[in-house]
Amino acid sequence: MRRLLLVSNSTLYGSGYLDHCEENIRSFFSRDVKRVLFVPYALHDRDEYAKIARNKFQSLGGGNTFRLLKCLYDNKLVTEIRKRVLEEGVPYMGSSAGTNVATISINTTNDMPIVFPPSFSAIGLVPFNINPHYLDTDPNSRHMGETREQRITQFHEEPGTPCVLGLREGCMLLVEGDKATLLGTTKARLFMRGQPSVEYSPGSDLSFLLTAAQ
Amino acid sequence: MRRLLLVSNSTLYGSGYLDHCEENIRSFFSRDVKRVLFVPYALHDRDEYAKIARNKFQSLGGGNTFRLLKCLYDNKLVTEIRKRVLEEGVPYMGSSAGTNVATISINTTNDMPIVFPPSFSAIGLVPFNINPHYLDTDPNSRHMGETREQRITQFHEEPGTPCVLGLREGCMLLVEGDKATLLGTTKARLFMRGQPSVEYSPGSDLSFLLTAAQ
Repeated sequence: MRRLLLVSNSTLYGSGYLDHCEENIRSFFSRDVKRVLFVPYALHDRDEYAKIARNKFQSLGGGNTFRLLKCLYDNKLVTEIRKRVLEEGVPYMGSSAGTNVATISINTTNDMPIVFPPSFSAIGLVPFNINPHYLDTDPNSRHMGETREQRITQFHEEPGTPCVLGLREGCMLLVEGDKATLLGTTKARLFMRGQPSVEYSPGSDLSFLLTAAQ
Repeated sequence: MRRLLLVSNSTLYGSGYLDHCEENIRSFFSRDVKRVLFVPYALHDRDEYAKIARNKFQSLGGGNTFRLLKCLYDNKLVTEIRKRVLEEGVPYMGSSAGTNVATISINTTNDMPIVFPPSFSAIGLVPFNINPHYLDTDPNSRHMGETREQRITQFHEEPGTPCVLGLREGCMLLVEGDKATLLGTTKARLFMRGQPSVEYSPGSDLSFLLTAAQ
């Protein structure tokens, strides 16, 4: 029954706010949707953020993942949203931080941990993790911080950790019931614990991720 | 009484492991130090990590900040290390993750939150936060993830948050009692809540940070 649209990023280089996924959002919400609940917790200025969302006539969820998840817990919304989406079929759309909190946990966010949520467990609308804004390693970089791939590999050194779908900027995952499809213009990279990573092109059927054992 | 050497990064582009701060480490540990306790918690393969440290005859602390802090709590070492360093004058040296955990909190780490520590509060050897591997904004980047400056600004949107010293790769902070000095070859950038950021060159006296009110 669930319907999810999990977008890597709100803005894509060279285009405007949510432009890159506008058609997808339009068709995702076209079916009977009259009202959209926008959750502005991930940014500090919630009124301004809500205004931007209203102006665009769309829902989204970007900003800081820790702040978003903490506010969802503080307002007792984690289980409520899970119930509404999984049991009552309310469509859920998230971008970046809003995509992270839709998965099992926020363990694979790129954000700075500016606030301390009571748990890294998230809404759990899908049984795997996502890394939004997935970034390929730059062979010319002189910066010595870990690459994104190294960070996800560190996550998979921990026992029992689930798959991580790296969504490059410009792509998104559409989930309808037990069917998951990669949409957009860029590829996604799937990291599985103890296995080589795999690339998927837009249009790929990723439904197997929804049944993957944890 | 405290003596701290807080290094931004273990490896600098174009040189070997800990080469860039080798002289600083040598002089930091020369005074009466016969044994060094190496804390290998931040990486998964602790034996291999300890071997690298032993081979270099130096102590360090890099890897994943969340993993390091969680292990310090799990082994009840946070208050113990604080006591030994602040009350008994045991020298403390950290690099990257080891630098983050030496400050008030790990709220300004760059690492992925791969494990959930019981708190983001850290050892608290200094009354401010550090962002290691500090990275300037790349005006040519097409990536739309937040810049480091934006992330620290988000941190400072939260009430009561302390100063953040951005240590670029190649620099480090030496603390001796109530005196703090920037060392190395690169500048540091200080972010204060509600004020413009300030650049400091190697050699700068940053002792005022040690008395700053929280």
